[in-house]
Amino acid sequence: MEDRTISRAVISRLPRYYRYLGELLNAGVERISSSELSKRMNVTASQIRQDLNNFGGFGQQGYGYNVQYLYSEIGKILGLNKQHNVIIIGAGNLGQAIANYEAFEKSGFVLKGMFDINPNLKGKKVRGVPICMMDELKQFVKTHDIEIAALTIPKTNAKEVANILVQNGIKGIWNFAHIDLQLPEDIVVENVHISDSLMKLFYRLSSQEKTI
Amino acid sequence: MEDRTISRAVISRLPRYYRYLGELLNAGVERISSSELSKRMNVTASQIRQDLNNFGGFGQQGYGYNVQYLYSEIGKILGLNKQHNVIIIGAGNLGQAIANYEAFEKSGFVLKGMFDINPNLKGKKVRGVPICMMDELKQFVKTHDIEIAALTIPKTNAKEVANILVQNGIKGIWNFAHIDLQLPEDIVVENVHISDSLMKLFYRLSSQEKTI
Repeated sequence: MEDRTISRAVISRLPRYYRYLGELLNAGVERISSSELSKRMNVTASQIRQDLNNFGGFGQQGYGYNVQYLYSEIGKILGLNKQHNVIIIGAGNLGQAIANYEAFEKSGFVLKGMFDINPNLKGKKVRGVPICMMDELKQFVKTHDIEIAALTIPKTNAKEVANILVQNGIKGIWNFAHIDLQLPEDIVVENVHISDSLMKLFYRLSSQEKTI
Repeated sequence: MEDRTISRAVISRLPRYYRYLGELLNAGVERISSSELSKRMNVTASQIRQDLNNFGGFGQQGYGYNVQYLYSEIGKILGLNKQHNVIIIGAGNLGQAIANYEAFEKSGFVLKGMFDINPNLKGKKVRGVPICMMDELKQFVKTHDIEIAALTIPKTNAKEVANILVQNGIKGIWNFAHIDLQLPEDIVVENVHISDSLMKLFYRLSSQEKTI
């Protein structure tokens, strides 16, 4: 099963399954049919069956899916059962917002440190996590076995900082800067382009006005 | 041209074109060939030509694209040449991060107000924009002709607040809460599911480890 290549489209839907199953669990639901899940998630039941078949199914005919089992299996597939040590580069509002999302911890997200270039922030803490200066980065990444850096800085310095991160052994970059990074192929970059999303919202609103 | 239906896939790529063209403009580049743009954006030249043909082309054979013209035309298509009045619901770190993104203003984003339920925030200002209480919402939306609300609150109250927004005439919701909203079809919802993106990053890192 690990050997199969799973399409990016399927993978991009897994977090949403995981989110819905988590809500079902919280609501005390023990099993759910693909048609009921389909109604809630607004995707077709056959899509759900196809997607989950990529991972061996989990469902039993006429019984439905065991919510707890499916939730934890998808969690394992996503790698949420492992600890991921993270630093945040940029201790501004966005960096602090991410540091304050307690819910991330359930996914194995462990925030070890925050970094900034503003000397006034040196030594301050966000939820017990220290804000360090960039010259401490190299040693910090080694000592704390950091795998991921969240990049919450303006785009001006993002490329330069991303290169420094990679040189220091960071394997994954969660990029919030409004720029696409060019990095070696073995570095995983996941972009959250907030401004792209805003433009799509504007477009959809504008094109709707035309059709009304 | 306005009558054609443009696929969501093309639309989802437009903000990225817009971002790259903006960078080219800032760098003083006046024209660019589709092959050069293709190299920079890491998509095929034929994809670029196809995408831009949806809007009538803009390119001239052997000359390339006029960067300024293409930038401003895509801007118009996205509706960035119009003013969009926005409120932010939730004046925490994430709400304040969005309020502080000056670059959004170039896209026609005009922040008129912020709302919260924390009475200690009442009357405070972020970049000159007042933080109001939720009971002021109805009057505020009318008075300031608000089109869009950014929802930067925890998922617990997100559905309820989204319904209140729609009842008060909001047409578009920029949703940062970790939940999918069920709203009438004429309401445009654009989600920024930060936690889904984090899970994709974890997945890609975990599956890479397996293959190395």
